[in-house]
This record gives sequence, structure tokens and C-alpha cells, in this order.
Amino acid sequence: MPEKKRILVIGGSAAGPKAAAKARRLDENAEIIIIQKAPDLSMASCGYPYYVGGFFDDRNMLLCTPTGVVRDPKFYLNAKGIVARTETEALKIDRKKKTVLVKDLVKGQDETIAYDKLVICTGAVPKRPPIPGADLAGITTLQSMQDADFLRKVRDDKVIKKAVIIGGGLIGIETCEALQLAGIEITVIEMLPQLLTFLDWELAKLVENHVRSKQANVITDNGIAEFLGENGKLTGVKLQNGIELPCELAVVAIGVSPNVKLAKEAGIEIGVTGGIVVNDSMQTSDPDIYAAGDCVESLNLITGKKVHAPYGDLANLQGRVAGENAATGNGATFPGTIQTGICKVFDFSAGSTGLSEKAAHTAGFTNIETVINASPDKPGFMEGLLLVTKLVVDKKGGRILGAQCVGPGDVSKQLATWAMAIKGGLSVDDMVNADLPYAPPFSLAIDHSIATAHIMQNKLKGRMKGISCLEVRKKLDDGEKPFILDTRGPDEYEQMRLGIGEHLIPLGALRNRLAEIPEDKSSEIICYCKISLRGYEAARVLEGNGWKNVKVMEGGIMAWPFPREK
Amino acid sequence: MPEKKRILVIGGSAAGPKAAAKARRLDENAEIIIIQKAPDLSMASCGYPYYVGGFFDDRNMLLCTPTGVVRDPKFYLNAKGIVARTETEALKIDRKKKTVLVKDLVKGQDETIAYDKLVICTGAVPKRPPIPGADLAGITTLQSMQDADFLRKVRDDKVIKKAVIIGGGLIGIETCEALQLAGIEITVIEMLPQLLTFLDWELAKLVENHVRSKQANVITDNGIAEFLGENGKLTGVKLQNGIELPCELAVVAIGVSPNVKLAKEAGIEIGVTGGIVVNDSMQTSDPDIYAAGDCVESLNLITGKKVHAPYGDLANLQGRVAGENAATGNGATFPGTIQTGICKVFDFSAGSTGLSEKAAHTAGFTNIETVINASPDKPGFMEGLLLVTKLVVDKKGGRILGAQCVGPGDVSKQLATWAMAIKGGLSVDDMVNADLPYAPPFSLAIDHSIATAHIMQNKLKGRMKGISCLEVRKKLDDGEKPFILDTRGPDEYEQMRLGIGEHLIPLGALRNRLAEIPEDKSSEIICYCKISLRGYEAARVLEGNGWKNVKVMEGGIMAWPFPREK
Repeated sequence: MPEKKRILVIGGSAAGPKAAAKARRLDENAEIIIIQKAPDLSMASCGYPYYVGGFFDDRNMLLCTPTGVVRDPKFYLNAKGIVARTETEALKIDRKKKTVLVKDLVKGQDETIAYDKLVICTGAVPKRPPIPGADLAGITTLQSMQDADFLRKVRDDKVIKKAVIIGGGLIGIETCEALQLAGIEITVIEMLPQLLTFLDWELAKLVENHVRSKQANVITDNGIAEFLGENGKLTGVKLQNGIELPCELAVVAIGVSPNVKLAKEAGIEIGVTGGIVVNDSMQTSDPDIYAAGDCVESLNLITGKKVHAPYGDLANLQGRVAGENAATGNGATFPGTIQTGICKVFDFSAGSTGLSEKAAHTAGFTNIETVINASPDKPGFMEGLLLVTKLVVDKKGGRILGAQCVGPGDVSKQLATWAMAIKGGLSVDDMVNADLPYAPPFSLAIDHSIATAHIMQNKLKGRMKGISCLEVRKKLDDGEKPFILDTRGPDEYEQMRLGIGEHLIPLGALRNRLAEIPEDKSSEIICYCKISLRGYEAARVLEGNGWKNVKVMEGGIMAWPFPREK
Repeated sequence: MPEKKRILVIGGSAAGPKAAAKARRLDENAEIIIIQKAPDLSMASCGYPYYVGGFFDDRNMLLCTPTGVVRDPKFYLNAKGIVARTETEALKIDRKKKTVLVKDLVKGQDETIAYDKLVICTGAVPKRPPIPGADLAGITTLQSMQDADFLRKVRDDKVIKKAVIIGGGLIGIETCEALQLAGIEITVIEMLPQLLTFLDWELAKLVENHVRSKQANVITDNGIAEFLGENGKLTGVKLQNGIELPCELAVVAIGVSPNVKLAKEAGIEIGVTGGIVVNDSMQTSDPDIYAAGDCVESLNLITGKKVHAPYGDLANLQGRVAGENAATGNGATFPGTIQTGICKVFDFSAGSTGLSEKAAHTAGFTNIETVINASPDKPGFMEGLLLVTKLVVDKKGGRILGAQCVGPGDVSKQLATWAMAIKGGLSVDDMVNADLPYAPPFSLAIDHSIATAHIMQNKLKGRMKGISCLEVRKKLDDGEKPFILDTRGPDEYEQMRLGIGEHLIPLGALRNRLAEIPEDKSSEIICYCKISLRGYEAARVLEGNGWKNVKVMEGGIMAWPFPREK
């Protein structure tokens, strides 16, 4: 045993270096060692798509401190007093002897290192589809610095013309943008009916429409059956429905699994999600061993269920807690996650915090209400951009369960606002009077988030009967004939319209044209406008005049995910 | 008395139209009348500086709906069923008879209008300095559409060369930017020692430095004594210290007072702040009379004290509540404000939510802790921009009392995050594990707000002894000789440095150069770097090696508000 306390950290990407650095700040005398299999350390892996896409050209920017110093072993030793051993693989944990067997991958030598406290940050491994042809050249993931280097070279070489992205999740979509910007013709293939499964279908569809508008192809409801090749090189992919797509590059982005081989072999408890079980001190089933980052499972604070949440921000927060506790005993806690995520999708951003409608159902919330709001982030005179938000609340007490937001506007601020509302356990009644920073360069006088809460409050109080675009489409497809009322002006109607049999009566004319509404006051009437603010006012006018079954199509034309007549 | 319920609204700017529109949506049959003295309605008054500054050229954009329809009496009648009487002044409220005497300013005719419920939204009036020369031509405020028209004409005419802005508050600073963009030489004159009094001095000073960097002059600690003129026209201003500044234009922006003349004369209760007293239903001391917007006082939810908070967003939220309650009885509430505000200042934004350190002291919080954090909003490879945040917490329980943020980065999202944290009653321990939306285009892996909470937690746990730049400057001015340690690299030191007698020992060399630190382990040592992250690590190294009195200069050079050597 060493004389000084020795803290050994396995993994040098996000959680590992964070844990090591935090431990150092709390114990200047401990011996701290990082074991890292890859040649690089502290890679900003969430930045890979932006390096590949050419947002910046200097690879070192992914590896350096804000002042431009590359975080290599020399940096760790001098600035942090941490020994970082790269190209060194941890092979086996002996919990009884409190040692780890490691292999120097350059020299080929094995070595046993003793620890007082061990922190496992082995991350996650990309899933691979179990199909023929998976070993052809031209198939990659975007998980490692080496993957990023490979795809960046693809960009710079300008040889490859066609690529497929397998998987329409966050990494898939970010990679789609990166390669599309590299001038490559892209097809995204997703097995499920939608991209970005953290969104509900109707918001995901808006993102899909935006991706298509950038000349990237999207195929949903279809998996990949086989990689096709010649002379060991990828030449195409065959889909499950038999279609073959020629391509020279395939990026597999169908998710990741926690990398728990070492922990499992050492008899450390693994959870139902496949991640290492930790308590809120980030301590595993072995009290001398902590774990953090993409290899652990976390508590979802809304559902109370364990989830695998491989997010870069959580890895850092967990690493900080694991490092502190490894150094000084269990004084810090990481309570869990509400699974907040965001990604850039060309000129859109898309993200979610808390539960989607789908996730709320899965988690057993049976008494929920949802609303969709479309409105700009700022006034028109400050060039406001559209946001479309879907809010999910528990009807009992109006507790906020989740919010999703997509669009060209400032999605990030919306999600931060909702994430904090959920963190604070706030209800719709709290949000309707939120006191947010307002000035025209930053928001509307009534911020989009607050307006969303207002609409939800109107629904909960029974003042607005909402109907989603999806439900309207379904009604029409089922042959129902509701009276559909577009309340915009004739100019707007000429420029853009749904063409679903709607009647145009501008809001300003409605009170004088009530004779054109079906006489039967129990007729189903569906009102909308561009964003359904005027649609809502029209519904109030009709209800005030005796109609009993008036609905507002939420989000209006801006939330309509289907093809339009014009 | 009319047969239908009649709701009369006095005031047609923000709160009034909102109240009227909300009342209409809840009661299609009520008679709703707006009395508006000005010729325009529903002006986006917070947008005036951006119209004056040329961010857009179409005046109607300040007056129109998102689809471009000007909100004039015809619009109100047709789209909302509301009678809006512009250029009509309310002269007197007779509470016994439940009538209001109004004058048609065009026809010169008086008329008495009965009400069932009255909503007073008379706004605020700009304060004017009680000094000689105040009636000279060339002196204006930026409070009304007419003021905006006047200043926009100044911009377009390009005749005026020099102007002064009297008052360095929010409107003063926004007007400064607008007129500076119009090519006018500007001097901002502020009586207090700092601009933007919602900020603490050291953050306000960073804003002032930025304003100066845009070639606008700033004079603080100096009021205006006299307007100077010739032939009825402004030619200059004389300051209280005797200095005379030639100018052809003066914009007075020294704050506003609630416009309560009508209410006061009618015997409605006026509060200590000078605003109309309302309960959380926005009901005045007369149960049939509601009030909302800049004419009322609000409850500060943190201090429990009444404040005058003339913010456009609150006016809208209050108007909504007043309108609902006037229409349907008291079902809606507006609980109060945490006084969140933000403004654009050239390439900076600056804002505050909750209490500043100064405000916390004034409110009687005696056991508070503060911290300043400087760091970028996004990674360097995504062109992150600097944010400087000052966080104020109650030491007992770590409850968050307030946050201020300035800089070129995304201040708005930071403030929204903190505003929601305060709304939720969160503590520092809650914020250290906040689950915010992370991806490189939007934030750092550990968001600036979370990092701020981390530093605060380190301070509260006694792991970091912070010292503000202001305190360091004072120590030096008082002749104290702390050992000052700059922990950056030599290149950085060559590019920029404070020159306050600091010793340069890069963090990476510190462990080997401890001999250069004063031998006496009780010596006062002050560490910093660019943003004081390395400064903090250096402090931990020194403490780990036995030094007992090591402080970190919070925010580092980026938060240093004084002149630098380089």
C-alpha cells in the first residue's frame, strides 16, 4: 500500500478527469492516477460533430483548456499534480486486494496498481447493428477522437459523395448536419416512426421537415438489413423493406450501452438498465469504488425510475461528486436527472426536459394534459424567430412534468427555464406569473414559456378545448367532417394554407359572419390561425355565441407537420 | 346603468389593452371600453430605443400584431369587440356613482361613462429634474410614441452632433446606444457613483467600461444643475461641479413615477412607494376598481416589501389578472415580483434578478455570501463569449437571493435560469446539480450558472476564500502589501496584465516554485488568473502546503473593473 492515499481513476474522457481534478483540489497530498486507454485525454466529445462539420479547424480545440493548453499527461502532471497514463488499458479489478491490473498498450507490459479509492469512468460503447457486412471499410461511429479524425478527413478529402446515417437520434442528427455541410448527400435511416425520440411525434416531424428542407433525405419506419460491399469496401446499404441505397460511407448512431465489462467481472452490481448501480454519493456496491459518467445508471427524479442518461453535462457533475467523495468521504451528492437534452439541427434547435407525453404515459402518469404553443422568441421588430413548445403537466395540481421545444428561435433559454421549473417542483399556476428577463432584444413582453403556461392554464380551467394537428389529421383521415375555421386574413390565406377543407373567416369579421357557421350549436368546430392565438379568440367568440363544441388547433399552421396545399 | 356588464379600462398602452382583451375572452357579452389619452394604442414602448437606433425603420412595427395589422380602434372593434377611444382623457372617477368623466381631446367634449368594473392602467410619468432651463427646445424623454418619433427624426435628420443623456439607468443606457448608433456624440450623466443601479458597483463598472469603449462618454457622481440655452433652444448643460457641456439635445431618463392623479383624487389608497395599492387580485381599495401596470406598487417576493416595479412584462401579467378578475370575479392572482430586468448595452447585455448585494443589505439580510464568476457561455471552439455573474445567497441554507450577469455572452439565459431558481426557492446545493440543456452550440458542459453555484458552494464550505477585485484595489490603496500571485502563462502575461505588483508563477510551475512564496505561512496571498479557475487551483496547492491565508480574486482579470497596466 502506498503511504499517501491513492485514488485511481479508470477513464480519461469527461467524468474521469473531472473526478481526478476535484479530488486533487480537496487533497493536495493524495496520489491521483488516471488510466486511459485512448491516446487523448479530456476530449470534448460533444464537439466532434462541429469539428467534422467545419465549425472550426483546429483539432486541438477539442483537447485544450480555455487558454489553449492541450490537456495531455504533461499538463495533468504540472498543473494538477495528476499522473495520467494514456494508451494504458485497465484489464481487471481485484476488489479484495484493492488493485487494478493494467496493460501499457505501447510497451505491451502488464502492471498491478493498488488503490485506496477507485473511480470507474469507463463510459459507453456505441451499439452496432448485428447485420452482415458490418466489417466493411467505410462504416464508422462518431464516438471517439479517432472517429472524429476519420470523418474530418472525409470532409477534407472531398471524395465521398453519398453517405447514410443509421439512427436518427441526437448524434445521428448532429452528424447529418456535419456531413451535409461537407457537401455529402445524406440519408438518415431511422427504424422508429420519427427522429429524436426524446420528442413527441409531432415536434419530431417539424424537425424532420426542417432536415428535409436542407436537402438531406430522411427515411423513417425502416431499419437496415445489410451493409453491401465490394473488395472489402462499403458500396451501399440494404434496408429492411428491400430498398438498396448506394453509399460510400455509413455512420452508425443507434445509441450507446454503458461500458461495464470491468465492473461486472469484478462483481460490482449492475442495474436493470445495464449501467453500474450507484447511490447518490456515486458509490458502487463496493464502498471503496465510485463510478460516474456514461457507465452508470441514474435516478430519474420525476418517475423515480433508474435510467441510462449518457449526457456530457451529467458526466461532469457526477465526476465532481465521485471525486470529492473519493477524496474526503461521502460529503457530496448527485440526486439524479430530469433528462434535459438539446441539439442543433441546421437552423433549428430541438430539445426536451422532463417527460414527453409518450414518456409520461410509459411512466404511468394517467392524468396528464398537454398543450402546443407556437410563437416567436422576440418581437417582430427585433427579428424574432419561431419556437414551438409542447408542455406536459399533471392535471392534479398542474405540476410541470416536461417541456419540449423546437424551432429556429432561442430553444436553449426555453429549456433552461422549464428545466428549472421542474427542478423547483413548480406548477402551471406558478409559471403563469414567472418573472423572467424582458427587453425586446431578448424576449416578448410575455415570454414564450409564460405564454405556453397561459394556454395550458386556459385548458386546465376549461376555457380552451385544444386539439393537436395530429388529431385533426386523424379525424379527416377517418372521414369525419368537422367545420374547420381558418381565422386569418385573405392575404395570409393566399400565401400559405392547409387545404383541408377549411373555411376562411378572418377574426375581425367573425362576429358579423356567424351565419356562416353551422347552425347546429353542437357541431364540432375547429379554429386555427398562423399560431392559433386568433384561433383561440375565435373559439371564445363562438362559445360566447352558444356553440358548444369548439376546439382550437394548437400551434396553428406553424405546428402543422403534414404537407400543406400552399 | 347599461344592461350588459360594462368594463371600463383607463389606459391603452400595455396593461390596459391586455386587461381589456383578457376580459373579452372571458365574457363575450360584456361591453368593454378603453379610454386612451394618446393617439396610439398598444405601443411596444420598450421597443422605442430600437426604433430610434435604427434596428428597424417601420414605425408601425411598434404598433402592430405579429401579422402586421396595426392595433388601432378599428382593429380593437373588429377583432376584439372592444371600443377603444383614443385622444380621450379620463378626468375624474366618481366612485359613488361608478362613473368616469372623460374629455374627447379632438372635439373638446366632455362625457360621463358609467362602469360596472373599472381598471386603472394610467402608467407612469417620467421624472424631470427641477432645474432652470427645463422648458428649452431640445430636451425630451423617451417615454411616449411622440418622444420616439422626435428622436427618430433626430437620427434621420443627421443635424444634431452632441447630446447628453441625463440618467444612467436602463432607459438612459438604451437611449445612449440608440443615439450613438445614429452618429451622435453622447455623454451619459449619472448622479450616483455607477450606471444601472440594479447592479452592484463592480459589475456596473464593467458595463461602464464597455460603454466607454464604444466612444460614448460617461460621467458619474455628478448631477445636472442647469440647462443652458439661447433663443429658447438648448445649447448645453451645466453640471453640479460647474463643468459645462455643449449639446443640442438632452434626453432625461432619471426614472418614472406612478401616474396616480386620477386614483388619488378619487380617494383610492396610494402606497408608500407612490403607487396604487392593490391586493394579489390586482384589486384596489375600491372592490369595483382594479389597477395594473406602472401605476401600481407590487410585492417584492423576496423582501416582503412593496416596490414600484415599472417593467413591461409585469404590466402585461398584471393586466391579464386584472382583466380576468374584472370580468369574472377574483379567480386569478398576481403574487408579486422578484424584479428581474435586462438591457442591451451595445455588444453587452446586463441584467439582474432578485437582490443585488446592495439591495440585500438594504432589505436587512445580514448573513449573506456573494461570489463573482467569469467564464464563457459556450466552448471556445463554438466561439463562446464572456459572462460575468455575481451571485448573492443567504448563508443560512444557501438560499439564492439574487444574481446579476453582464457581458457579451448569453446573459438572458443565465438570468432566466436564476429567476426560475429564485421562483422555486432553490438553494446553492440544488443549483450545483441543475440539469440544464447542454450541447456545445448552447453552453459549456458545466453551464456558467452551475459553475457559479460550484464556486459559491466552495466558499460556503470554506474551501475557497474569495476576495473581490474591489477589495483588492482597496487593500492596495490602503497601503497593504499582500503577496499577489498571477498564475497564468508568460504569453498571457505579456498580452495583458494588471500591474499591481503581482508575481507571475504559472500554475503548472507552482509546485516546484513554492520557495518563491513568502515563507511565513500566515502571509496574506491573493491568487488569480484570467478568470480565477487556475487561481483557485493555485490557492488549493498553497493551502495543501501549509499556507493559511490564501485568497482567490474572484472573476480574475476578466472581472477587474479598474485600469490595467496592459
